[in-house]
Amino acid sequence: MEELLEQLLEDCRPYTQQGKVATYIPELAKGDANDLGIYVLRSDGRHYQAGDYKKRFTIQSVVKPILLLLALMDNGEEYVRSRVGVEATGKPFDAINVTDQTLFSDHLNPMVNMGAIAMCTLIKGKDYEERFRRLLDLTRQLAGDQEIDLDQQVYLSEKRTGNKNRALAFLLKTYGMIEDDVEQVLDCYFKACSISVNSKDLAHIGFVLANRGKLPQTEERIFPSRYATYVNAILMTCGMYDGSGDFAVNVGVPAKSGVGGGIMAVVPTRMGIGIFSPGLDGKGNSLAGIKVLEELSKRMYLSIF
Amino acid sequence: MEELLEQLLEDCRPYTQQGKVATYIPELAKGDANDLGIYVLRSDGRHYQAGDYKKRFTIQSVVKPILLLLALMDNGEEYVRSRVGVEATGKPFDAINVTDQTLFSDHLNPMVNMGAIAMCTLIKGKDYEERFRRLLDLTRQLAGDQEIDLDQQVYLSEKRTGNKNRALAFLLKTYGMIEDDVEQVLDCYFKACSISVNSKDLAHIGFVLANRGKLPQTEERIFPSRYATYVNAILMTCGMYDGSGDFAVNVGVPAKSGVGGGIMAVVPTRMGIGIFSPGLDGKGNSLAGIKVLEELSKRMYLSIF
Amino acid sequence: MEELLEQLLEDCRPYTQQGKVATYIPELAKGDANDLGIYVLRSDGRHYQAGDYKKRFTIQSVVKPILLLLALMDNGEEYVRSRVGVEATGKPFDAINVTDQTLFSDHLNPMVNMGAIAMCTLIKGKDYEERFRRLLDLTRQLAGDQEIDLDQQVYLSEKRTGNKNRALAFLLKTYGMIEDDVEQVLDCYFKACSISVNSKDLAHIGFVLANRGKLPQTEERIFPSRYATYVNAILMTCGMYDGSGDFAVNVGVPAKSGVGGGIMAVVPTRMGIGIFSPGLDGKGNSLAGIKVLEELSKRMYLSIF
Amino acid sequence: MEELLEQLLEDCRPYTQQGKVATYIPELAKGDANDLGIYVLRSDGRHYQAGDYKKRFTIQSVVKPILLLLALMDNGEEYVRSRVGVEATGKPFDAINVTDQTLFSDHLNPMVNMGAIAMCTLIKGKDYEERFRRLLDLTRQLAGDQEIDLDQQVYLSEKRTGNKNRALAFLLKTYGMIEDDVEQVLDCYFKACSISVNSKDLAHIGFVLANRGKLPQTEERIFPSRYATYVNAILMTCGMYDGSGDFAVNVGVPAKSGVGGGIMAVVPTRMGIGIFSPGLDGKGNSLAGIKVLEELSKRMYLSIF
Repeated sequence: MEELLEQLLEDCRPYTQQGKVATYIPELAKGDANDLGIYVLRSDGRHYQAGDYKKRFTIQSVVKPILLLLALMDNGEEYVRSRVGVEATGKPFDAINVTDQTLFSDHLNPMVNMGAIAMCTLIKGKDYEERFRRLLDLTRQLAGDQEIDLDQQVYLSEKRTGNKNRALAFLLKTYGMIEDDVEQVLDCYFKACSISVNSKDLAHIGFVLANRGKLPQTEERIFPSRYATYVNAILMTCGMYDGSGDFAVNVGVPAKSGVGGGIMAVVPTRMGIGIFSPGLDGKGNSLAGIKVLEELSKRMYLSIF
Repeated sequence: MEELLEQLLEDCRPYTQQGKVATYIPELAKGDANDLGIYVLRSDGRHYQAGDYKKRFTIQSVVKPILLLLALMDNGEEYVRSRVGVEATGKPFDAINVTDQTLFSDHLNPMVNMGAIAMCTLIKGKDYEERFRRLLDLTRQLAGDQEIDLDQQVYLSEKRTGNKNRALAFLLKTYGMIEDDVEQVLDCYFKACSISVNSKDLAHIGFVLANRGKLPQTEERIFPSRYATYVNAILMTCGMYDGSGDFAVNVGVPAKSGVGGGIMAVVPTRMGIGIFSPGLDGKGNSLAGIKVLEELSKRMYLSIF
Repeated sequence: MEELLEQLLEDCRPYTQQGKVATYIPELAKGDANDLGIYVLRSDGRHYQAGDYKKRFTIQSVVKPILLLLALMDNGEEYVRSRVGVEATGKPFDAINVTDQTLFSDHLNPMVNMGAIAMCTLIKGKDYEERFRRLLDLTRQLAGDQEIDLDQQVYLSEKRTGNKNRALAFLLKTYGMIEDDVEQVLDCYFKACSISVNSKDLAHIGFVLANRGKLPQTEERIFPSRYATYVNAILMTCGMYDGSGDFAVNVGVPAKSGVGGGIMAVVPTRMGIGIFSPGLDGKGNSLAGIKVLEELSKRMYLSIF
Repeated sequence: MEELLEQLLEDCRPYTQQGKVATYIPELAKGDANDLGIYVLRSDGRHYQAGDYKKRFTIQSVVKPILLLLALMDNGEEYVRSRVGVEATGKPFDAINVTDQTLFSDHLNPMVNMGAIAMCTLIKGKDYEERFRRLLDLTRQLAGDQEIDLDQQVYLSEKRTGNKNRALAFLLKTYGMIEDDVEQVLDCYFKACSISVNSKDLAHIGFVLANRGKLPQTEERIFPSRYATYVNAILMTCGMYDGSGDFAVNVGVPAKSGVGGGIMAVVPTRMGIGIFSPGLDGKGNSLAGIKVLEELSKRMYLSIF
């Protein structure tokens, strides 16, 4: 299997040159387009890795399923569903999903920015510092990596330049979708996106979702099985932005990408996969990362369809 | 299991009163809101049924995955994908998916009307009569039911009143998405929607998709496994219109609904399910039908997530 | 004044090369981009002309104010206003003005295609042949030119290729905005657009609107003063498609353009102007024609603001 | 004439009960729906008034033409036009005019919020305090009323609750339409909307626009004639939000309304009119105010068409 991974990276390496490193915040533009890494954790306890799997990058949108999980753990399914919808928007990740001067919770989706910002307000905590701390703790626990931390440079860069997210947050405020102070909510969201992880971390987090709430090895249950189903279903329909349809057809497993270049894939009951390659396609997904997953899915029959 | 189905129908029968029978074409309005039936065909060859499972209704949008299958069988995956996209539109089934005066194949989706009309032009045949005949033949073969036929009344009613579909077809023509005569293409589409089936038929068709291309019992292969994956993935992300997200979360299997009241569900490797209940929710899906599937999914752990 | 016109054409002739002759119907593509003509009819009875003012071209959208006039004359203001709105759409001339699955009369505007198609159904006549005949008669009367007639080639070309207009008409039908047979309504609309006129005709028609319903010389009243106000106001806000704002600022008089290259301008109480130059700008307006009007407005203080 | 005005107010007073006082900011909700006042200043120097013409209210969107004037005076027409477009948007006043992830200056209009916010950045001044001071000075000069000042209560209320405007401003920032600090720009905009005026003030300001840049009596020129034409043309096409089409047809003069209940109307070369009645119609225009203007236009032949 290790050989297979090495072979896949070899085959897909040319695609790293076709993607474009994200530049919408200055700090991200420093990513190295040549990076390509993969880590696979299987339900039999074995793990396999290749390439730049130790390299750290910011989690970006891959934090969205973790935000959703924590919101579910803190509030239960019914309340979370009443505040943030689950339908695909048919639009890019930072789209303004406002039609005809109205905005309802059903217009939101936890996997696009507006919905993710709204979810920050569902995490419990006495202030937004504590909320973020709890999110970071959950991330460390899921990844089994206590060294996961905030990338200060990226966080400050996001905070300084995140005007589109500010616009989205003020729209949420306008239509009563969030009640707290907009800048505090955004601060939590910018921090969440700036958590620094590696491919191994993403594979571990994906594994817990594949394993329906239980950690690897110890099989300790972190959250109810139902929440894994809830999150995985949304990853399937909306996890890869407006490229989710092609991903479902060509890879066929729940997954989430981030503009930092990471992809976390969930193969229910079988494995968690973490991928890193910062060159993005036109929809904001890791271009070479998707190619690797397409090949891996074909070779190992990963598709759940 | 038969008892379980009887119990489920009993429990969900009150919901039949909350849905509304489709009225957008006069003939459909004659449906009986009290009808509720289910048929389950399992991979071990057993089948279970309850309620009005023998009752016939028009297939409507449940024909879309069959249209897609035939288009794939006639043209291969690459060509079909180049003509009709696979992303969720985030809009109702008969939406005008035209932005800023342009229309691309990637704006289309085989599970909404525009995409389905475009797919009619991909079926091979010397004329549109032959194309429809081949679609009907495939439907009969998949359902294992040679008595499946056109409902003339509904077909004529659709043809007479289907002006929204005419508008959509002329837009496709305007932007070069279809080349043939619009009225001929529409005639084929209206006929396709007017095929008369019952719950058992839908369960059989769903089974072949769950069984990745092979008929029940004989295990005769009708189409390549890859096409089942292709179709099932799209059913997952877009099969229940703009209710696909909630369906993925709450039921968790590929499925397709039609405004005639039918739902075909595909439980990969395990079973095909056909449901019938003509009372629809606000998104055009069988209201009681979804309730039955939600319960069945919980009791039998059907979710693939 | 004749000299002024000659001078203006001289100055603006280079702009004829910047526009593009309409190609959306094959017959229009035959227009000669070098053509440039102007005709001015003043309230003191004098007229001035220069360039290709005798050259014939199809009236296209300049027929819209005449359609509106006839609808007003046949039905009165209140009824017409109840069927077709008067607000600018903020969109191109053939836009699909459908929001969220609904279409109201207030979404229509008589100066864009959807509204103009709807107006065809408001003209009185025992059949659509008679309706068109009455429109042609009014056009001849307003222009004082009995030789105005249909351009058969353009009409047949429009009819054969007018699929976008077919789509718009079927949408109108879907939402109950028109009741008659779509193809008959469209036939009338295609004929209306294919009336062959010259700059002198447009100047005469514009003059009657400027003169609030009375013909030149005889001062015979053709329609009530109120209808001129109604039409002129709409020409001001929407007559130049989504270039109406710039035209109001830079020329400042009610006007209507057509993709055949014609512009009819109305200088209330003072003059009617007809212009012809088939090279269009990106919004479908005669590019050199607008330049001529901008200059003329500056030199003769035509702006009503 | 005074009698005519008294009569008109009498006739239109019932309409004050049909409108609804704006409540989108708490302070505005305190307006008295019974108020109705009018002030007319004619080019012969005479003025006529009736009803609550002395009552003060906040200028709200009626400040937009003054903002535009000052932007023109500070930068010239060409630069202002390059930064803020002039086309009707076809949407409500606070609409998000963003299509497909892009925003161009041509999408903006000086008479809707986004465009007006952008214009604040075009006013010259060493800081935003000085910019606002200059706007206030121009307003006083145009109105011939040195006592015009900021309504602190409304200003603070706007600033506290103006989240939709914050969202619009951050979108402008995102797409490079404004460069300055968003909160400072907004502070200037909120202050501009909160200038306290009466019907007489609006009549005076409207008069200067009607008089193409010269003050009443002294005939002192404040701005070039061309800027009056520019502003009046935009008032005609977009001054009454998405009710501008009906207003052009039924009243026929450039005008601007504000949610404070004011309307400023410009009858070129003839008069300036100020109206006040805080009950608004569904589009945010003074309901009784429009009725008064419709009647006045009919009786005095004000329409410029």
